[in-house]
Amino acid sequence: MAAETTAADLRDALDEGRLVQASTLLAPLDVDDTIEALYRLPRAAQAVAFRLLPKDRSLDVFERVDPALQRDLIETLADAEVAAVFAALDAEERVRVVEELPAKVAKRLIQSLAPADRAQTAVVLGYPAGSVGRRASPEYVRVFADETIGAALDRVRAQPNDDESLYTLPVVDRQRRLVGLIGLRELVTTPGDELVGAHMGEAIQVVSDADEEEAARECLDHRLLSLPVVDHEDRLVGLLRIDDAAHIIDEAHREDAARAGAAEPLTRPYLLTSVFTLTRSRIVWLLVLAVSAILTVNVLEIFEATLDQMVALALFIPLLTGIGGNTGSQAAVTVTRAIAMSEARGRDIGRVALKEATTGLLMGTLLGAIGFTVATLVYGIEIGWVIGLTVVAICTMAATVGGAMPLVAKSIRVDPAVFSTPFISTFCDATGLIIYFTIARAVLHL
Amino acid sequence: MAAETTAADLRDALDEGRLVQASTLLAPLDVDDTIEALYRLPRAAQAVAFRLLPKDRSLDVFERVDPALQRDLIETLADAEVAAVFAALDAEERVRVVEELPAKVAKRLIQSLAPADRAQTAVVLGYPAGSVGRRASPEYVRVFADETIGAALDRVRAQPNDDESLYTLPVVDRQRRLVGLIGLRELVTTPGDELVGAHMGEAIQVVSDADEEEAARECLDHRLLSLPVVDHEDRLVGLLRIDDAAHIIDEAHREDAARAGAAEPLTRPYLLTSVFTLTRSRIVWLLVLAVSAILTVNVLEIFEATLDQMVALALFIPLLTGIGGNTGSQAAVTVTRAIAMSEARGRDIGRVALKEATTGLLMGTLLGAIGFTVATLVYGIEIGWVIGLTVVAICTMAATVGGAMPLVAKSIRVDPAVFSTPFISTFCDATGLIIYFTIARAVLHL
Repeated sequence: MAAETTAADLRDALDEGRLVQASTLLAPLDVDDTIEALYRLPRAAQAVAFRLLPKDRSLDVFERVDPALQRDLIETLADAEVAAVFAALDAEERVRVVEELPAKVAKRLIQSLAPADRAQTAVVLGYPAGSVGRRASPEYVRVFADETIGAALDRVRAQPNDDESLYTLPVVDRQRRLVGLIGLRELVTTPGDELVGAHMGEAIQVVSDADEEEAARECLDHRLLSLPVVDHEDRLVGLLRIDDAAHIIDEAHREDAARAGAAEPLTRPYLLTSVFTLTRSRIVWLLVLAVSAILTVNVLEIFEATLDQMVALALFIPLLTGIGGNTGSQAAVTVTRAIAMSEARGRDIGRVALKEATTGLLMGTLLGAIGFTVATLVYGIEIGWVIGLTVVAICTMAATVGGAMPLVAKSIRVDPAVFSTPFISTFCDATGLIIYFTIARAVLHL
Repeated sequence: MAAETTAADLRDALDEGRLVQASTLLAPLDVDDTIEALYRLPRAAQAVAFRLLPKDRSLDVFERVDPALQRDLIETLADAEVAAVFAALDAEERVRVVEELPAKVAKRLIQSLAPADRAQTAVVLGYPAGSVGRRASPEYVRVFADETIGAALDRVRAQPNDDESLYTLPVVDRQRRLVGLIGLRELVTTPGDELVGAHMGEAIQVVSDADEEEAARECLDHRLLSLPVVDHEDRLVGLLRIDDAAHIIDEAHREDAARAGAAEPLTRPYLLTSVFTLTRSRIVWLLVLAVSAILTVNVLEIFEATLDQMVALALFIPLLTGIGGNTGSQAAVTVTRAIAMSEARGRDIGRVALKEATTGLLMGTLLGAIGFTVATLVYGIEIGWVIGLTVVAICTMAATVGGAMPLVAKSIRVDPAVFSTPFISTFCDATGLIIYFTIARAVLHL
């Protein structure tokens, strides 16, 4: 509310070059309100407003805005300003910013870092995109199993970084191999002369090239404040923090939701996304679907003579294809979720298909009975039989196919979310029409 | 893999009453593998296997399995065993278990608790379902602003609980009102004789009856290890931990995904869910959709004469309704996400509708041009015009409606996820058919 009014006032102030007033408007806002106000400004004004922020807040704001706005800011601000913000970021955040930038700008920025920061950034950039190594923080405090609790606590005190990952400390041996985990609380409550090794807990770990989403789920499942990331020799290379894990999972769900709706995820807030970008994120999928839907035209052409004999059959086409599409996507969504939760895998395909076929048959029988009754009352017993039997057959087919498809996708290593709702609808449409006209010809002797 | 073999061996051992062998099979498993093995057992054997677990592992397992399995276990185990597990849970977890149980069983369980635990559980149960009060832990360590760092550190040391929420300590005044937050690290690194009040940070807080999902998002957005929950007088009543916040968001995404596929979320793992439960979770939605699809039959009846004159028009029905449905659901998914991210709200409906109408027009023009060309080549110029113009009109209409619907839902306080993909498909089907036949009549002079 406040942010909206402020954004309107801000825009006026910036438009007319009243920078002192703009600065006064920004001063009382907290980080959230600042971000909301920024998003409501036109692109050119965003960089000016950002530059007017108090220095400590500008870093918080930069860290929290979308990658697209980060890129815009970097491209608009002066080199020295950018370098200052960039140097203040954590290594893994720096990499996320760099990923969004043109290679030339990215290279210049990395060159602007102090040698130690540059080395750390290069290490993180060395992990493949989408791996947990990219998301793990290389800045952490580690303690040694063979040192005393007192010495370990001194290491924590000596660390200038006030990161949350400090609360779960990885314990390593002298070869930097991870051997355990110890909480800061354990350090505080244990006599200082005892050994870390005697009080540490079991080490849960992931390898740096593991998929970021699987690692994040591991972190959340075990409710770890930070999950140690190691190389293939078990040497510690970083920590995945629980807040980053939560953001990875959140982002993965959003991408799935976008793909389930046959659109690519957007990189900037909706209202700031141009019509061209929106179109681009959808048109490819829509084209794929439209081209595959041409199949339904071909199927209907085969039955054109039957349709000509009895035009009333056309009336039920959208109803029947709708039921098939919906049944198929219900099954697909349920099974896709089961795969994501590791509740079902490739080899379960037989059990899943059987379960879905039975479910589809049960639903089809219930719906088909209703369809038979209604169609008989309105159009007579023959059409009643056609509709009733078609609904039973289509529901069984659609549920089976919808349930099996995500597992097929999984076993040929395609993202199950790609076999999305509309894709399955299109498939079920064509098959459903064949079922419909085959039953109609048999029952009506056409 | 191992869990699967173990489950098979376990089942055999339990079937034949070889409990010592079953116990030996369970002994080497960690918590994850134990849970996976449990899920693969038939229901009757689950309680027996659970009873054979070492005591410390059985609690970890109980906390992590689905509510449905928790309920099964409670109903099958002996009263004394249940009481022991129940007493060892945290107050907010106890409430989650209680929510799943028949009232009578729940009451008996709560009676079995020690008075202090019973009181805590009653407090949590006092908050409305779905509120953050239900999910906040009432067991926390709080420190006072006017005491020394040394005294605060002693409080942490005195606490037997080794909860993660100990790492961010709420600071209160003597009236138990929240005044700030201080990290354990800050306590450890600050001289013991300084005051807590001088080193604490700003308090971010939510009210106990706030929606759990909004509170969880607040916690994740601010990357807080725990978010203080207060009553309407700003008095501290609990802490929402970041791991719980992450689980709340994860669960919310799953429900949205299920509803977007027009199914109710399942409460137990897919392979363990019966065909009847699967059917029940889908049939209501499918019925609603089927009944509304009857609208398409009525629409087509109006145009039956037109169809009779030119049966070829029926060939394109599934293609055109498919394009409309997909375009509408693409728009709906994008806008629903924007609402969830607070990027668009009720009052933006004009801007959203305009943006979607433009996007739809652009997509429709691209697809329509292709449709016109293909249809002209195969069926002649007249059909070409009908298809081309219809695609343009349907895409524009579907994108506008699909984009506006979630905002309409939001402003009449209905869950936007309810206006799901298949619902919008059905709406666009009927409207699309009217557009199609109106254009066909005009162009073909029927």
